Amino acid sequence: MNRINKNERVGAIIKILTENPRKIYNFNYFCDLFNCAKSTLSEDIDIVKNIFKKFQLGEIETVTGAAGGVLYKPTMTQEQIKEFCADLCDKINNKERIIPGGYIYLNDLLYSSDVSYNIGRALGSFFQDMDFDYIVTIETKGIPIALMTARVLNKPLVVVRKEGRLTEGTAIHMNYVTASSKRIQTMYLAKKSIAKDSKVIFIDDFMKAGGTAKGIIDLMKEFDAEVIGVGILMVTKEPKEKLINNYHSLIILEEINNESGEIIVNSSI
Amino acid sequence: MNRINKNERVGAIIKILTENPRKIYNFNYFCDLFNCAKSTLSEDIDIVKNIFKKFQLGEIETVTGAAGGVLYKPTMTQEQIKEFCADLCDKINNKERIIPGGYIYLNDLLYSSDVSYNIGRALGSFFQDMDFDYIVTIETKGIPIALMTARVLNKPLVVVRKEGRLTEGTAIHMNYVTASSKRIQTMYLAKKSIAKDSKVIFIDDFMKAGGTAKGIIDLMKEFDAEVIGVGILMVTKEPKEKLINNYHSLIILEEINNESGEIIVNSSI
Repeated sequence: MNRINKNERVGAIIKILTENPRKIYNFNYFCDLFNCAKSTLSEDIDIVKNIFKKFQLGEIETVTGAAGGVLYKPTMTQEQIKEFCADLCDKINNKERIIPGGYIYLNDLLYSSDVSYNIGRALGSFFQDMDFDYIVTIETKGIPIALMTARVLNKPLVVVRKEGRLTEGTAIHMNYVTASSKRIQTMYLAKKSIAKDSKVIFIDDFMKAGGTAKGIIDLMKEFDAEVIGVGILMVTKEPKEKLINNYHSLIILEEINNESGEIIVNSSI
Repeated sequence: MNRINKNERVGAIIKILTENPRKIYNFNYFCDLFNCAKSTLSEDIDIVKNIFKKFQLGEIETVTGAAGGVLYKPTMTQEQIKEFCADLCDKINNKERIIPGGYIYLNDLLYSSDVSYNIGRALGSFFQDMDFDYIVTIETKGIPIALMTARVLNKPLVVVRKEGRLTEGTAIHMNYVTASSKRIQTMYLAKKSIAKDSKVIFIDDFMKAGGTAKGIIDLMKEFDAEVIGVGILMVTKEPKEKLINNYHSLIILEEINNESGEIIVNSSI
């Protein structure tokens, strides 16, 4: 490879860090890649830090010590989260989204890789300074936003199933009651999924009374694991009393007016 | 904002493009952001292109015309795909993955945001020059890799359900027969999910005889849509005759030896 100039080093560092959120790259990795001295690289990293700060592109952090290096945190500023949630509320408030039975069609948003990535960034911001082992979700619609939260926080994702599957081996299965409709449901999770004494964050797309979240908390106990955070995209205003106390949400669903066709949603931020 | 120098412009462009694969950014967007002339930006983009080429970081492409601009394509070189698949085969060949009944536990890989992103990049490479409207998958385990393929190719994702859901509105449901076990299964898809006359790519994690893929092809006909490509992470060697003819895969599952505990998998690339 020809001589590598500062522009090229800075550019390549940014590309690699951005595509691998929260993955720590040892300084030696870049020194080898660019065939440069550590002092040169330190200067480059300072430039990278300043660029991210100047344009509010998230954070670049250096970690010292043996396992040290540099990493990219895709944090959003409070202002950026607010703007994103307001924009999402605008998209949701569309009468064509109303489905008979008082539901809202959100698949196009939940399954958009772009929207789900930004939901992941926004939800991730609540848990970015916490020490935990897994992001947990339950199939199906919450998977994309949970995967993106996992990507943003660089943690493994665990998906709880609603039906047992032969292909996942021995599983723990547990009944729980949905709080809103009082129906008995089952959740399954393969024993291999979670190591003992883990701490997890539960991510889901929707919460009414919190029966599912409560179920996940109980299921985790069976794995000697603890839910230390809950992040939900959209939470209904009613019932006010949820089965769980501590959770973060981005959007509050106030009301669906079937007659006027209005969906009243507000940002929680 | 203070004066912005070349390093900063190049760095910010790379950050923004990398985080938004295949999204076209108009030159004016960057000219406004940096308060710079188009000629200056053109030079910057050339530098960005060279950095991506020099370090094999994917492609930067400029598009001319009214809707023109610049975009990042997270392509992998053939060599990079080969290396990734070989590494994945190494990870899969581990006797602790064998599950009674001849299955392989892959959740930790399929649900890893890092592995699934790279699977998305590798599978996406087969379809990157095709003109289509949606990535389609069927719940549950294929969702993360399908979402990442959708992210890499910047297309909306559509998830076919195995159970009807009230929350998605009117749906088309269809029975199909799994080719390997001859069981009748059902798939559901909300009518809102896909516009008429669409072209789609089907992505899944696993294929044996191809019954599910065949089912998706039939289901798409009900939406007046056409499957123009199929991409599967892992395909079994047997049966050789699949129900569909054209598909791309990354890994071939040759054999699971329950006695020796060996999983023989090979890269298809």
